[in-house]
Amino acid sequence: MAEAVRHDKTARQLRLLSDALDSGRLGPVRRLVNTLSPAEIGNLLESLPPGKREVVWGLVDAEDDGEVLVHVGDEVRESLLADMDPDEIVAAVEDLDIDDLADLVEDLPDTVIDEVLKSMDRENRERLEQVLSYDEDTAGRLMNPDVVTVRADTTVDVVLRYLRLRGELPEHTDHLYVVSRRHQYIGRIALAALLTHEPGTPINKLIDDEQAAIDVDESANEVARQFSDHDWLSAPVVDDNNILLGRITIDDVVDIIRDQAEHQALSAAGLDEDDDMFSPVPRAVRRRVVWLAVNMVTAFIASSVVGQFEATIEKIVALAVLMPIVAGMGGNAGTQVLALMVRGLALGQVGASNVRTLLWKEIRVALLNGLLLGTVVGSVAWAWFHDPRLGLVIGSALTLNFCVAALTGVLAPLTLKRMNLDPALAGGVILTAMTDTLGFLSFLGLATLILLK
Amino acid sequence: MAEAVRHDKTARQLRLLSDALDSGRLGPVRRLVNTLSPAEIGNLLESLPPGKREVVWGLVDAEDDGEVLVHVGDEVRESLLADMDPDEIVAAVEDLDIDDLADLVEDLPDTVIDEVLKSMDRENRERLEQVLSYDEDTAGRLMNPDVVTVRADTTVDVVLRYLRLRGELPEHTDHLYVVSRRHQYIGRIALAALLTHEPGTPINKLIDDEQAAIDVDESANEVARQFSDHDWLSAPVVDDNNILLGRITIDDVVDIIRDQAEHQALSAAGLDEDDDMFSPVPRAVRRRVVWLAVNMVTAFIASSVVGQFEATIEKIVALAVLMPIVAGMGGNAGTQVLALMVRGLALGQVGASNVRTLLWKEIRVALLNGLLLGTVVGSVAWAWFHDPRLGLVIGSALTLNFCVAALTGVLAPLTLKRMNLDPALAGGVILTAMTDTLGFLSFLGLATLILLK
Repeated sequence: MAEAVRHDKTARQLRLLSDALDSGRLGPVRRLVNTLSPAEIGNLLESLPPGKREVVWGLVDAEDDGEVLVHVGDEVRESLLADMDPDEIVAAVEDLDIDDLADLVEDLPDTVIDEVLKSMDRENRERLEQVLSYDEDTAGRLMNPDVVTVRADTTVDVVLRYLRLRGELPEHTDHLYVVSRRHQYIGRIALAALLTHEPGTPINKLIDDEQAAIDVDESANEVARQFSDHDWLSAPVVDDNNILLGRITIDDVVDIIRDQAEHQALSAAGLDEDDDMFSPVPRAVRRRVVWLAVNMVTAFIASSVVGQFEATIEKIVALAVLMPIVAGMGGNAGTQVLALMVRGLALGQVGASNVRTLLWKEIRVALLNGLLLGTVVGSVAWAWFHDPRLGLVIGSALTLNFCVAALTGVLAPLTLKRMNLDPALAGGVILTAMTDTLGFLSFLGLATLILLK
Repeated sequence: MAEAVRHDKTARQLRLLSDALDSGRLGPVRRLVNTLSPAEIGNLLESLPPGKREVVWGLVDAEDDGEVLVHVGDEVRESLLADMDPDEIVAAVEDLDIDDLADLVEDLPDTVIDEVLKSMDRENRERLEQVLSYDEDTAGRLMNPDVVTVRADTTVDVVLRYLRLRGELPEHTDHLYVVSRRHQYIGRIALAALLTHEPGTPINKLIDDEQAAIDVDESANEVARQFSDHDWLSAPVVDDNNILLGRITIDDVVDIIRDQAEHQALSAAGLDEDDDMFSPVPRAVRRRVVWLAVNMVTAFIASSVVGQFEATIEKIVALAVLMPIVAGMGGNAGTQVLALMVRGLALGQVGASNVRTLLWKEIRVALLNGLLLGTVVGSVAWAWFHDPRLGLVIGSALTLNFCVAALTGVLAPLTLKRMNLDPALAGGVILTAMTDTLGFLSFLGLATLILLK
């Protein structure tokens, strides 16, 4: 129900917009679009087929262009940038925060990058170059160098006067950072603390030095984990010498968490979260065909196992009728184990110390499920083909295949992770290959041994 | 690579802890555990098998107990609560924030709930009862009623004096809310604005009245969408009469986003995100067997189609060898379409206005992929069984099945959503049923028509 309410809102906007577009009245479309936040506009653009997408993009307020570009996937961004001339792009991106700009800059044409750099003042240019010098998916790339710092040997009153002089604080500032003379990170002061203490209070009484700073080389995923484990809204980023370089805010972390989730869901189907839902057909084909071809190879391997038993099948055609059940149900059981493992690995909950307990548990679950469902499947097979031995064969093969599924479901993702491969991407392919191949082998093998003797 | 670093940290803690536990030295375990945040302790407890889990739970500082309980899944929570006596539970939960307590309270034994309510002062008890009066998964249930409000007809100076008198602000306060005499929500004031403006500035000059308040009945998913679309850190919650009831903070929203993602990943395998990785075997079997049984039924339906073609297979055993390829690859192609649709629906990007364009695109992708991979599969089949007509049959059947996969992948999740069912849960089952059944039918049907004539 809740799910339903949720899409309904976005889907309603989409429908309204689509109707207005179809009617050709662009005035209402423009008004509708410009009541939305940049993220919402990005979402709408992603959901529009090319053609309509360009029309709506042309109606977005120029001042929102930059933020909208930040909020769409790489492929849609490319299509939007293709519609803009260099001047428009420069105007759109020059006012972005440094971290957002760093995120965009590599998708821009080289000539535009030069223009953007020229349009920035020296300080911002240096900051951008610094952020870009860190690897993608690290804290350095996520941070915003725009930070308000104070010194420890002062009072609330002095800080308040400084802040009033300074005017606006950077977006999402919840703490000021206290640094040493050499700009080393000492601790942080909550804005709330400044507001709730008397003007005469010395700053060093308000310092919270418990929050460890994030290392600039920390991975984005580890940053996300720390934020959600500690309920941080922002965190300081430092280099090896503890020099304060910038800060990361929760809004960027929310984006990482969403991206991770999308990546996990889509990579299991061999897809990329940055792809456009409306990619041109040849491009979509090119992307999908690789993963399908890998699955084709494993399908041929499984068939070649069936091929070894042609003589058996020729004698008992019922085997051909029943064999997909063993393979398919094994795959289903394995999918359950794999889903648990992929989550466990993503949360760091599975490792060398508990994998044996987990494997043993999964084997027992597989044996019990095999006993239960094997009995059902075996009885149906017996009744269908009037042969109790066939029931015995399929029941045993199913139980065996459940055990194969448990073993593969636990060990494949662990092994992939150890090889620095993505368990979500390759786990399913390996699992199906195993449960198909060994499912056919155990069923047809047992049948040959028991039924043909 | 980044992924690897991430688990490594948590997995390392897990290994250290596990080694210390195995050696029986509880002192180091206690020290190690109590350097962690409650969320990290929760994560560790989730990753420990029962037995070890109870030992470590006994070593957690009593003052962290409540927060740890908030940070674990329902089933693990139940196992932890089972280890505590009522007094311990009351002591653990009585200091929690109202929204966290509301989250826990339904898992507590009735006698404990009474004790907890008795231990609270009247104001907090009323607040808890109010929060509990809203449906689960609504804004009302997520909100914390502890909010700092100010009036519009005053100055920065007066507010500062009030805040100094008041002392600490509730956690994650980034705005004060401005309310009318009747406690109606008017707007918000950033803490940053109070710090950067002169004491004499009238409050009504600083009010930001652009942020719409969240309706108390709004669904949790819609709340999460609004937070991430607008980069909010917190938002006010109001009732139908615009009376301010509380506020929701980003840390709760991050939890919702994580839960949604886990739910999507696990429900596709018929699992629940609140299950314990180390559930007792009988319980795990009970849970998994239902989903497997549903898949068993669809597998039997697919086999019954194969059963219709026993006579054909008896004459051409090669068909039994090749038929899993058509069914399996069709399933894979459909999985890709389904993954895109489930994401599109979750983001509200797919609706009546663009489903036709999408379907037409997917059909074209399916036809092209069918042409490409159908040619490969057909050629291999021809070479393997020395029959060009067999190649033609399997190539055509594969293309047909890709189209079935595209149709089902687009339409099944849409239809499920319209029926208020979860597309992530049931989509895969329906998809496999279709691609297996129609894959076998088209392959064996075409073979009967073409090869046996």
